[in-house]
Amino acid sequence: MNLPQFEVQTHFSKLSRVEAIHRLLHPESIAIIGASANLDKVNGRPLKHLLEKGYRGQILPVNPKYREIKGLACYPDIESLPSGVDIAIVAVPAADVIAVIESLGERGVAAAVVFSSGFGEMGKEGQLLEASLTDAAQRAGVLLCGPNCLGFINAFENVYATFSQYADGDTGAGPVGFVTQSGAFGTAIAALIREQDLGLGYFINTGNEADLVFAELALAVVEDPRITVVAGYLEGLVNGESLVRLAERCLELNKPLVLTKVGRMGAGARAAASHTGSLAVEDAVFDAVISQYGVLRARNEEQMLDMLEALIQPRRCLGTGLGIATQSGGAGVMMADRAEEVGLRVSSISKATQQRLGQFLPSFGAVNNPVDVTGQFVARPELLREAVITLLDDVDIHVGIVWLQLMTAHVDALVSIFEEIQSRTEKPFLVCWVAAPLQARVKLRQLGIAVYGAGERAVEAAAMMARFHANVERYRSSGFVRIEAASPVPESRLTGVVPTEYASAWLARAGIPMSPITLVQNADEAVDAWKTFRQAVVLKIESPDVTHKTEVGGVVLNLDSEEAVRRGASVLLSNVARSFPAARISGILVQPMAEGHIELVVGAKRDPVFGMMIMVGTGGTMIEVMKDVVFRRAPFDTNEGLCMLEQLRMSALLDGVRGQKGIDRSAVASMLSVLSRWAVAMPRLIELDLNPIRVGQSGPIAVDCVMVLDEAS
Amino acid sequence: MNLPQFEVQTHFSKLSRVEAIHRLLHPESIAIIGASANLDKVNGRPLKHLLEKGYRGQILPVNPKYREIKGLACYPDIESLPSGVDIAIVAVPAADVIAVIESLGERGVAAAVVFSSGFGEMGKEGQLLEASLTDAAQRAGVLLCGPNCLGFINAFENVYATFSQYADGDTGAGPVGFVTQSGAFGTAIAALIREQDLGLGYFINTGNEADLVFAELALAVVEDPRITVVAGYLEGLVNGESLVRLAERCLELNKPLVLTKVGRMGAGARAAASHTGSLAVEDAVFDAVISQYGVLRARNEEQMLDMLEALIQPRRCLGTGLGIATQSGGAGVMMADRAEEVGLRVSSISKATQQRLGQFLPSFGAVNNPVDVTGQFVARPELLREAVITLLDDVDIHVGIVWLQLMTAHVDALVSIFEEIQSRTEKPFLVCWVAAPLQARVKLRQLGIAVYGAGERAVEAAAMMARFHANVERYRSSGFVRIEAASPVPESRLTGVVPTEYASAWLARAGIPMSPITLVQNADEAVDAWKTFRQAVVLKIESPDVTHKTEVGGVVLNLDSEEAVRRGASVLLSNVARSFPAARISGILVQPMAEGHIELVVGAKRDPVFGMMIMVGTGGTMIEVMKDVVFRRAPFDTNEGLCMLEQLRMSALLDGVRGQKGIDRSAVASMLSVLSRWAVAMPRLIELDLNPIRVGQSGPIAVDCVMVLDEAS
Repeated sequence: MNLPQFEVQTHFSKLSRVEAIHRLLHPESIAIIGASANLDKVNGRPLKHLLEKGYRGQILPVNPKYREIKGLACYPDIESLPSGVDIAIVAVPAADVIAVIESLGERGVAAAVVFSSGFGEMGKEGQLLEASLTDAAQRAGVLLCGPNCLGFINAFENVYATFSQYADGDTGAGPVGFVTQSGAFGTAIAALIREQDLGLGYFINTGNEADLVFAELALAVVEDPRITVVAGYLEGLVNGESLVRLAERCLELNKPLVLTKVGRMGAGARAAASHTGSLAVEDAVFDAVISQYGVLRARNEEQMLDMLEALIQPRRCLGTGLGIATQSGGAGVMMADRAEEVGLRVSSISKATQQRLGQFLPSFGAVNNPVDVTGQFVARPELLREAVITLLDDVDIHVGIVWLQLMTAHVDALVSIFEEIQSRTEKPFLVCWVAAPLQARVKLRQLGIAVYGAGERAVEAAAMMARFHANVERYRSSGFVRIEAASPVPESRLTGVVPTEYASAWLARAGIPMSPITLVQNADEAVDAWKTFRQAVVLKIESPDVTHKTEVGGVVLNLDSEEAVRRGASVLLSNVARSFPAARISGILVQPMAEGHIELVVGAKRDPVFGMMIMVGTGGTMIEVMKDVVFRRAPFDTNEGLCMLEQLRMSALLDGVRGQKGIDRSAVASMLSVLSRWAVAMPRLIELDLNPIRVGQSGPIAVDCVMVLDEAS
Repeated sequence: MNLPQFEVQTHFSKLSRVEAIHRLLHPESIAIIGASANLDKVNGRPLKHLLEKGYRGQILPVNPKYREIKGLACYPDIESLPSGVDIAIVAVPAADVIAVIESLGERGVAAAVVFSSGFGEMGKEGQLLEASLTDAAQRAGVLLCGPNCLGFINAFENVYATFSQYADGDTGAGPVGFVTQSGAFGTAIAALIREQDLGLGYFINTGNEADLVFAELALAVVEDPRITVVAGYLEGLVNGESLVRLAERCLELNKPLVLTKVGRMGAGARAAASHTGSLAVEDAVFDAVISQYGVLRARNEEQMLDMLEALIQPRRCLGTGLGIATQSGGAGVMMADRAEEVGLRVSSISKATQQRLGQFLPSFGAVNNPVDVTGQFVARPELLREAVITLLDDVDIHVGIVWLQLMTAHVDALVSIFEEIQSRTEKPFLVCWVAAPLQARVKLRQLGIAVYGAGERAVEAAAMMARFHANVERYRSSGFVRIEAASPVPESRLTGVVPTEYASAWLARAGIPMSPITLVQNADEAVDAWKTFRQAVVLKIESPDVTHKTEVGGVVLNLDSEEAVRRGASVLLSNVARSFPAARISGILVQPMAEGHIELVVGAKRDPVFGMMIMVGTGGTMIEVMKDVVFRRAPFDTNEGLCMLEQLRMSALLDGVRGQKGIDRSAVASMLSVLSRWAVAMPRLIELDLNPIRVGQSGPIAVDCVMVLDEAS
């Protein structure tokens, strides 16, 4: 983790960075630099909130214009502050911020929350000012949240170091910790958390992250035992390792981490030498990494709220078996469809369970899963209660969803039924109550029962409960083993596109199955090489200027006679001369035809945020159209390689279709793991394509490679 | 349209079926057969609703137990009813329903709404009873809605022929007509329409559809000029043609039709001789047909409501250019991503528009689209107003979305701003107000401004507005031309799998480009055929038992010498003898190797609901893994064929990737159209696979076909 590890110098002691973050979030005294007596203004609102919400520490406004604000002594300047102030809220013009931070450092203030805008968000000039601010904070030993942020709330200790609109109105504390890079969107999400009565313990807006970054603050939040779920909203990320550490810590503590990140479409395809490079767009990599490390991704704010609603429940979903009880057959079908799409099983229930259901359900109801209790339950609500309890008792059901609608006249009866279901079962269940009367929603949430307004949303939330538990189990069994990287090959002076012969030899030495190649300079040598291989060969052009050989007619396949090889060599050279006359030709590669009816592509790419990423996909030359690729952060083990293969859209191809034989998935998975360990140890590797990899009965073999190295440093 | 076309016999005149449906929905008198004096019971609730909601026609309860109910004269039996009653509500036990319908017919009652359950939903016995009911209604000349339905509401004329929970509470009329096959789910949707204050003009539950079906009732609703949008909830469909007619009529009237259908996953792959057969699962066909005929599909009830919210606006969205204004950059990115996924363009705005925006937006805001008005608009709300108006004025913007959050203290100011935007622009715009105060939502809806709680949902709704307009335009320009079916080939006595030679010859005569084939009986004849073709050939096994030849080793490619052909024939026969010894061998097909680097699959399948369907897909033998297929209902024109090709996931392949040349899409589209006209005229055609179709520079050519005919009738 390459974050600044400097210590914070206070007047009485040196704090570690982690201790300083804790001090920031739990201050016993708060100075407000540039405090206004108008409590509606940005620089007045924190004081208003601190007073109204009952902050118990010391509040020290600083402003030469006032002697006191709302009965609190107001200090003319930072120098006059008593020593030992924990944190400062800074709401002064951008141009004054650096001087303020320096003064705070001199007074031994541990941390500052900088509301001021006018930094990185303002173009080049602002970015320079922000870099100076970062330097100044480090020199002054002041931890910095912001600038250009709304500040934060620790609702447990009534710390309202914020001017967010969210702080207006009721802000009771609760089990959700929420950290956001965006102020406006973050405030909206906080307000939705309040609307849904989930209980928001922390609200932190990280702003421009000149010092403290998202993952550090979220890590501090997850350590609070009063927090059971951490939610985050991201717009961009510089340090991937810190996010991975956060993810691991959340699993360690058995607390779900739910992230929403905007920018799903990424910047689109970029110019890149390799297929892997052009496919490894920002969001695909982000998505792969967070799923690899057990983070739950919410595609938008609504899905985040739906997930939080389910995940704050203490009950865990120990499998993927979903039991559905409805009063509408159609709703059952809709939910079952969605369940299949999101990885839940609408499990068959046992004969015994069916018999028990049959004892009390009307004959036109369904005693399979989904269970249709029919409209009869309006007259006999106990039908619902017994059906749900019976269903949840089935050994193959891990989570239940109960669907109902309206029932305005029966709210109290139904709430009691759900309360009884809750007390008589231990498995989690969610209620989907379409067009529910408001009081029904409120009462169920008071009982700690998650309630949704739409069936598919309840199903998606249940799927996330199951996925979270699976992630925790996976983490506990493997701990995302810190696989040792392989020893790197000796550095060479090569840079840019590496000649195929060298690249191929390195990879073969690393344990990657490579098809043998011989570089020749003319047709005679090509014929000699063919004779040596004693089988049909392929000829390929070798040029530092040509990375995709087929595109310039630079590949001739299946030559198995002296005449064919000679003719092939001549065709090859004239093709390339015609389609790419300026290409520098290093020679012709001769290679035996590889067997294997399945074509994969494997690649590696150094991502600026997450480091070395490995890709596998189906397709050969069509991969950029197919886009059937899966990424993982290196290094990883064979199990993870198997998961990658399973996630391919065309995974079924690997098992053989229409008379073809299946392939040995483990051999491919092992190759992926070996490559991941090697690639992560190659400090100058930028991109690598092994394309295609042919896979037949004797396992995978790479028949071409494009490797790009960075400048030697 | 194969619906019953019988006439309804009333005491005073014969009504056409359409007139009778109109009478049903606008009755001047309603008898309630089996009326209860307890107005909370199923058979009492319609009376309660009719009285409370102020139905102005005559209400005639029928029950021998009472002399009067709630001041209304109660008739002891149907025979005592005055003549000329328009409709009857039937709420008697299932066993009594048929007798009641017969009596109603005798009294000249035009139509009956049958609440009673105990019919088709109750298994075999119930289905028989329902069939008898259908017969009885036809004989009696009584139009029948139900049985097993909640009845219907015509809120304009206060007709509450229903016991749905929805009728409790406020039920003001409005522009949405809603027809549902499900009672429970339908009631929930109706309640959501009320919650969102959209205005529900008709609510009709069709129940078991023993007589009147969904599309007929929806057609009656769309004809009402007070209705501007029709919504439907479907669980199953027997008559596809009636749905197609409904769809066309909606476009003719410029009224959107929004459908939700459950059962998206279909019954999964079924056993079928052809790829087309196994891929043409129920929901894929449904989805293709409704999109072909301009119906908007909502994947669930929430999306339906979101679409209705936008579509009840009178403003039309004349293109796909979306302008976004936000107070959060992140929200803008999220919405722009979603827009790209759902077919909208977040258009670049002109330099002039950018300059106008730059005149009043703060320097750190974005003057591109999405426009970020920044948090500054809290202080200066006119920023938002001017930004949105400027943006909507841009020539490439067709619909706007404004994103904001909370702003609890500024509701009135913001509502006025939106009102002014509405008066100063003519283009449609949607407001996304996250965590909006309730009064803000209510006030905007009163102004006729659509308001959403989540950005992606607003984007999806805007996309549907654009799609609806495009559908209307497409309909107006082409009218879904009723293309003449081709003349069918003379019937033959063949049934089941048709020998390849016959099938191929028929198709060639119909104008489908087929690769020539010769059926031979031994290696000598194969060699002769090769000589005739004067080029490399392929040999294929011909057997009525083998439909997928490659799976049994029944194809040998690229033979171009006498020896190779002989060896190939021998290999072929021994392969098949080994892998499928019981197969009856008709001979060996000899066929020239087809050129063409792109492989498509084309098929036809008779769907039980929608009739002949045509499929095109990418892939050859892998199609069932790729599942990259598109369906259309036959017949259709070349334009529609081009649309099919565009909708393929791998559509880009057709234009050439990685050095390959593109193909002539029109030639393929024309072939699809020709096939569609031929297939629809082949009454006994059940399934057809043309797989693969090779497409090269000289257009498409089918190199194999499997055709299955029904028994001759």
